[in-house]
Amino acid sequence: MKVRYELIHKDKKTGARYGKLIFTSSDGSTQEYETPMFMPVGTQATVKTLSPEQVKATNPGIILANTYHLWLRPTPEIIEKAGGLHKFMNWNGPILTDSGGYQVFSLARNKKKDITEEGVHFKSEIDGKKLFLTPEKSIEIQNMLDSDIAMSFDECPPASADYNYLKNSVERTLRWAKRGKKVHKNKNQNLFGIVQGGPYEDLRRFSAKETVKIGFDGYAIGGVANDDECKDDMYKAIEFSNPYLPEDKVRYLMGVGEPVDLIEGVKRGVDIFDCVSPTRLARHGNALVPGLRKTEKGEPKENRLNLKNARFKDDFAPIDETCDCYACKNYTKAYVHHLMRCDEAFGATLLSIHNIRFLISLTEKMREAIKNDEFEEFISNFYSLK
Amino acid sequence: MKVRYELIHKDKKTGARYGKLIFTSSDGSTQEYETPMFMPVGTQATVKTLSPEQVKATNPGIILANTYHLWLRPTPEIIEKAGGLHKFMNWNGPILTDSGGYQVFSLARNKKKDITEEGVHFKSEIDGKKLFLTPEKSIEIQNMLDSDIAMSFDECPPASADYNYLKNSVERTLRWAKRGKKVHKNKNQNLFGIVQGGPYEDLRRFSAKETVKIGFDGYAIGGVANDDECKDDMYKAIEFSNPYLPEDKVRYLMGVGEPVDLIEGVKRGVDIFDCVSPTRLARHGNALVPGLRKTEKGEPKENRLNLKNARFKDDFAPIDETCDCYACKNYTKAYVHHLMRCDEAFGATLLSIHNIRFLISLTEKMREAIKNDEFEEFISNFYSLK
Repeated sequence: MKVRYELIHKDKKTGARYGKLIFTSSDGSTQEYETPMFMPVGTQATVKTLSPEQVKATNPGIILANTYHLWLRPTPEIIEKAGGLHKFMNWNGPILTDSGGYQVFSLARNKKKDITEEGVHFKSEIDGKKLFLTPEKSIEIQNMLDSDIAMSFDECPPASADYNYLKNSVERTLRWAKRGKKVHKNKNQNLFGIVQGGPYEDLRRFSAKETVKIGFDGYAIGGVANDDECKDDMYKAIEFSNPYLPEDKVRYLMGVGEPVDLIEGVKRGVDIFDCVSPTRLARHGNALVPGLRKTEKGEPKENRLNLKNARFKDDFAPIDETCDCYACKNYTKAYVHHLMRCDEAFGATLLSIHNIRFLISLTEKMREAIKNDEFEEFISNFYSLK
Repeated sequence: MKVRYELIHKDKKTGARYGKLIFTSSDGSTQEYETPMFMPVGTQATVKTLSPEQVKATNPGIILANTYHLWLRPTPEIIEKAGGLHKFMNWNGPILTDSGGYQVFSLARNKKKDITEEGVHFKSEIDGKKLFLTPEKSIEIQNMLDSDIAMSFDECPPASADYNYLKNSVERTLRWAKRGKKVHKNKNQNLFGIVQGGPYEDLRRFSAKETVKIGFDGYAIGGVANDDECKDDMYKAIEFSNPYLPEDKVRYLMGVGEPVDLIEGVKRGVDIFDCVSPTRLARHGNALVPGLRKTEKGEPKENRLNLKNARFKDDFAPIDETCDCYACKNYTKAYVHHLMRCDEAFGATLLSIHNIRFLISLTEKMREAIKNDEFEEFISNFYSLK
């Protein structure tokens, strides 16, 4: 489905954007989804522990799938033969695939890999087979997967990379973006470009301007480390990139899914987010709940309960009294605690539903606040929650 | 809910029973379910990998939960505080709990345990704690769980037990049944008796007659080993017990769930069955499919596909073309293969849905055949399927 972004309203004080993504199928039918949006991640063509119906019930827009994982298993050839990713995984809503770059650079962070101008040589984590991912290959795979949004293949440098490394990397990523766009063949698929440049204003500006010159259907801000050490760098990356991105295209902050970061991202003009955290937290027994806690450095961080904790064994209240998700409407903390203690899969299912809905619900509240020009109050309320 | 069984029709040639279980709540509302019936098992207050809605979609009647497991975790005290098992696990249909006896005797088969007239001393498999299960304790736990059907606490002797062992065991089981009935307090809960006696006609007759004299809301045939070695013993156990059970009470063959055994059980007058096999097979990647295969001894056995097998990687047909389950209507073998290869939980979910629906669908077909006095033809068609 081809996509266009419609900016509907900007919050008067912060400039936070409320908008819409309108997807048009080849048969002319459309699907509309509001932004800010949080996209659940279905790494291997399944949102872990959930059926598509359970995902749908959280009211998502786009979901994500990972090109790297699907390239290795089941292979793009199989998914193409199946009639594309939507049919393969029984998902009729929009799907975004990443480029595979992030996984190549991060999963293989400590393994030998060889980055050349042509692409990246590395070994499969599954069977040790030698693999070579190039901008052309990434786009070719995504074309075959037939996702609705494909991402350009970019270099994701380590957080420790210095200015000179990043400068070279930004330039290479631009050359890779051009090469990818050139071979992009799937007419029903959108292609997004990615802005890199670490925390450096000049690099982000250069990367954003040049990426926009190449011309894409949407723009992502990449290379933001999603950990407590680098919050400031993440905010800088957004602030230094966004002024150079066109207002009429959607802006996607890749791999970010902490409540605080969704708020701070939207405040700085981001429209869409994705993160594996809600399902990963769930599998470890954690539920996102309202309020904030502090990191050791005193920074605000998402509030969570670990349902494995013995104190929940006779807690017959829902995970979150204020939540409207299937888990909170039908089950108690005591039940989820029991399931997690017994390693019953349905425990992770319930927590995944809750955590995904928690983040999506947060985006819904942000939309309302922006529409009413009350986003600043929304943020201050958010931070004042115990 | 109190239950009564209504025998609606007996197949003219085989005597196989088609009937109804009518459950009446304390508020007077009723739920009706047809028999023959296969009951999915929710050992730890969850049918493994499934939501209650996914279970419901397979069209089950009663589901099972295990007293032994729930005794250890989360404990009957917690479930009672939660408002009973139905509320705890969000299941408004009928629930049957076993007595815990089978688990004490089988899970601890190779561990030290001490069977006395009073009850069984053994150690918890979770933390090694010393435990003591008696007929009174079993009923007390089940009263607290507030299932709709409680089972008497019986001794489940090993398949290797000789005549004298079984004779003593049958007599003790009768004494235990009386003790259990005496302390059964939950007025909304039914209590079923269990016939034991191995493959011996006189022991089964004695056990059945004496159990009926005590008087229960339904009768189970226990101690039938669900493995290929003992098919004849299982059939004998049914044939030697059923003539002495009242026609107006439901007959339950415990722990049996192979398609062949459902057919052979119904032919011999059994109404309800349960087994963990559909969900256990699923977690190992196996799907039940029509037709039969042969054991090494040449006996017919259920047909199955292992979806992990590489030959399914590009098989874009459903698991079973003739099946009406959610998995078969929406997904391909290739997708399930992919999920199982990647250890994605949704693979086991899809296979569990299919396998449970497969057995329930088999009982639905048997009902139709019995109603039409065509059960003999049904059986011969069943065995002729390749």
